[in-house]
Amino acid sequence: MTQANILDPLPSLYIGIDGGGSKCKAKLVSDDAKFVGVGISGRANPVHGMETTLESIVDSAHKALADADLPRRALRNVIAGIGLAGVNLPSLFEQVNNWPHPFKEMHLTTDLHIACLGAHAWQDGSVIISGTGSCGISMIDGKTKMYGAHGFPLGDQGSGAWLGWKAIVAALLASDDLGPATVLTDRICDYLGARPRGIADAMANQPPKEFAKLASIVFTEAKSGDAVAVSILEEGVSYLDSMARKILTDNPGRLSLLGGLRSEITPWLAEDVKNTLSDPIHAPEDGAIHFAKTESANANKKAG
Amino acid sequence: MTQANILDPLPSLYIGIDGGGSKCKAKLVSDDAKFVGVGISGRANPVHGMETTLESIVDSAHKALADADLPRRALRNVIAGIGLAGVNLPSLFEQVNNWPHPFKEMHLTTDLHIACLGAHAWQDGSVIISGTGSCGISMIDGKTKMYGAHGFPLGDQGSGAWLGWKAIVAALLASDDLGPATVLTDRICDYLGARPRGIADAMANQPPKEFAKLASIVFTEAKSGDAVAVSILEEGVSYLDSMARKILTDNPGRLSLLGGLRSEITPWLAEDVKNTLSDPIHAPEDGAIHFAKTESANANKKAG
Repeated sequence: MTQANILDPLPSLYIGIDGGGSKCKAKLVSDDAKFVGVGISGRANPVHGMETTLESIVDSAHKALADADLPRRALRNVIAGIGLAGVNLPSLFEQVNNWPHPFKEMHLTTDLHIACLGAHAWQDGSVIISGTGSCGISMIDGKTKMYGAHGFPLGDQGSGAWLGWKAIVAALLASDDLGPATVLTDRICDYLGARPRGIADAMANQPPKEFAKLASIVFTEAKSGDAVAVSILEEGVSYLDSMARKILTDNPGRLSLLGGLRSEITPWLAEDVKNTLSDPIHAPEDGAIHFAKTESANANKKAG
Repeated sequence: MTQANILDPLPSLYIGIDGGGSKCKAKLVSDDAKFVGVGISGRANPVHGMETTLESIVDSAHKALADADLPRRALRNVIAGIGLAGVNLPSLFEQVNNWPHPFKEMHLTTDLHIACLGAHAWQDGSVIISGTGSCGISMIDGKTKMYGAHGFPLGDQGSGAWLGWKAIVAALLASDDLGPATVLTDRICDYLGARPRGIADAMANQPPKEFAKLASIVFTEAKSGDAVAVSILEEGVSYLDSMARKILTDNPGRLSLLGGLRSEITPWLAEDVKNTLSDPIHAPEDGAIHFAKTESANANKKAG
């Protein structure tokens, strides 16, 4: 207990955490800019595992502390802003929000919200994310409106998991001679080392992350003009195009495309959508740090 | 131990078990036709839970024994033929086949195989099943060829789970104003008591059986001409039509449509496919009993 006192003179510490279907990124900063650290851990989407999600959050935070040369016990001095995939589902928000977390304070919101805050430097704006999953948000006068974010396989059209899943479906149709066999469907079988009836065995009950790993094959073959790959990609992109046009009717100002598939997807977007895109200013983790600071200040104002 | 001896004079007992995504049906017969019983238990698709599957198998057998006024311990005198969904996946076949089962003998095959044996009274023929899942099989000169049976959400187009899932996807697109809102999408929200953003919360990680429950809404609204319901049903049926045409190229003789959606789906099939359908002669459980008898006789021939 006395040992903890060496932390007392620490400046205010904030951590911004961005948790999604493939990884969890944490960024630590101090008010005096003396401490800075980052940490990356495994997947953190509570739809596909609450325990893993909470472990990834704590692990990414521990790594960020270590990166800033701070001991693990400094976590109890940290004000955390956490943006998580999946917590747009009310039951999951409640579960994570009631978690006996190890931080001084925890402020929870969606991964979309922190991404939007970061991308437009806390100003009005909108983002579409295509990573393991897909979703969109517009933020006008502090009010947010969400699109998608329903999770695979209910939604997430145009995401990595969705593209990979469509490729699996196509490979299975080809294996039954009920759909065209192309280079894409061949490469999917090769990748899984399972042809053809072992494909479903390899992919049954796999998390979205495993499907998303196949997305790069879809992009590669679509670039080579593979008819099945092109049609999968066009269907996914048409969903993202519709979402972008819908978001723009809200006049949110800037629109950014984010997520792991950003650079691969962009060339396939419709011209009118591509022309409206702006580059993001800050990262989602920075948005999460901003969220932690403002929510903490608001809470203290209310309390005081 | 001595108590078991009262069972010794029992005639040969056979049980046929048909296990699928929604239920597990068992039928018990004795060689002298003195004992007959049936039992129905819960879902038994090892893709979505090995433990539940094995429990359902044993439970359905216990119920069939009770129905025939036989004690549970008579199970050790029973030669079982089991047709299971999902065991076309090699790893699942191995797991179930190596299970320390409570029967005298257990002979395992797919639900498709026993359905085909039953439908055509152990003669050559073919079946398409549309129930919780979807699949097809042709059986010519004892050689079987399978189509589909890849499991939801990788395959199972035109099945109950697939139709229900498509309705959920449509309801979510409508909730984002990224797809048409119709009576179907409204009724899906009503059914789930969740509008609109709770839909994904209600259905995330649900087993195929829960999606299949929504299929009846799709049929009802398609009959009323709901554009979204009709388009979902037409897409699913077109897969089953293709499968039927593919199977018929093998010249298997009779083709039957089976499964829980049989009567609802039939009117939507293409005319050329509808005209080739024959009514099934026996039930899948009867096919499983036949399978148990022939496999047991073959095994004893080899051993002897």
